[in-house]
Amino acid sequence: MDNNLAKKELIKLAKRAYRNGEVPVGAFVVNENDQIIGRGANKTHQTKDGLMHAELIAIRQAEKRLGDWRLKGCTLYVTLEPCLMCLGAIGNSRIDRVVYVLKDPLFGSVASKLSTAQVKKMYPKLKVEKLRGEEEVAELMTSFFKDLRTREKKFRMGANN
Amino acid sequence: MDNNLAKKELIKLAKRAYRNGEVPVGAFVVNENDQIIGRGANKTHQTKDGLMHAELIAIRQAEKRLGDWRLKGCTLYVTLEPCLMCLGAIGNSRIDRVVYVLKDPLFGSVASKLSTAQVKKMYPKLKVEKLRGEEEVAELMTSFFKDLRTREKKFRMGANN
Repeated sequence: MDNNLAKKELIKLAKRAYRNGEVPVGAFVVNENDQIIGRGANKTHQTKDGLMHAELIAIRQAEKRLGDWRLKGCTLYVTLEPCLMCLGAIGNSRIDRVVYVLKDPLFGSVASKLSTAQVKKMYPKLKVEKLRGEEEVAELMTSFFKDLRTREKKFRMGANN
Repeated sequence: MDNNLAKKELIKLAKRAYRNGEVPVGAFVVNENDQIIGRGANKTHQTKDGLMHAELIAIRQAEKRLGDWRLKGCTLYVTLEPCLMCLGAIGNSRIDRVVYVLKDPLFGSVASKLSTAQVKKMYPKLKVEKLRGEEEVAELMTSFFKDLRTREKKFRMGANN
C-alpha cells in the first residue's frame, strides 16, 4: 500500500480514538491485494478492557472477515509501535509484516523494549518496518496527553464540571 | 491459593477446552483474597479467533468483574506457560504474579522463548512461578495431540464421517 495513503487512513483511525477520549492509536490490516480487511481504533478506556488495543481490534475484524485466525500474507499498519501483547497477537496470527509510524520507548516491543534482533529470533518470518514522517502522529499524541493533563489539573482544582 | 486446589481448578478448565476440540489450556485469575474473579478455557478454534487464549478470556472476565482493566494484586494461574501475547496482556493488566504448570518450549514466553531475565527486565514487578507436578497437564496435552493425529490420519484415508 502507498505509504501516504496508509498514513492518511491511520490518522483517521487515531483521530476516532481521540474523539472518544482514548489514547489516539489507530491500526488496520490489509490482505495481499492491499484491501483493508480489519480496522481498529484504541478503546481500552471506553470498554474498561485492556485488551482493546487498536491492533487487536483490527486483527479480530480481519479474522472474522476471512473466517480464519491465520492471516498469512497480510500486513498490519499502526500509528504507534506495538506493545508486547500486540506483537504476540501479530505473531500468533501469522501476519507477514508490521508497519508502524511512531516509536514507543515505554511499551514498544518491535524496536524499543524488545530489539529488532530479539523479535527476529522469536518470529523469523515477520517483517518489521517503520514509516518516515511521524510528525502528525506525534502531534496527535502530544496534544492528547496535554489535554489530559489540563483536564486532570482542572479536576484537582475543583473546576471540573 | 493452595497449589493442589489451583491445579484441580486448572485441570477442570483445560478439560472443558478438550471436550470442545480445543488445545486443552485452562486459566483463572484470583484477587488478593484468593477468590476466582475470571476463568478461561481456550477456544481459538470454535471462535476462529486467535485471541481467544484461556489467559485472555480469564483476564477479560476479571476486568469486567472489577470494572477496571488494572488487575493489581491479582494472580493468574494457567496450565501452560503463556505465549508472548498473553505475557503482554498480563503485563498490560498489571497482574502481580503468574503461576503456570507445564513449560511450552514452542511458544512459552516466561521461561522458554523469552528467558526469566528478559521478562524481569520488561516487567520488573511481575512474579513468575512454575508449579511442580505437571504430569496430569502433560498427559492431557499428549492425549489431545494424539487424538488430533488419529483424526487427521482417518480424514486423509477417507474414513472420516
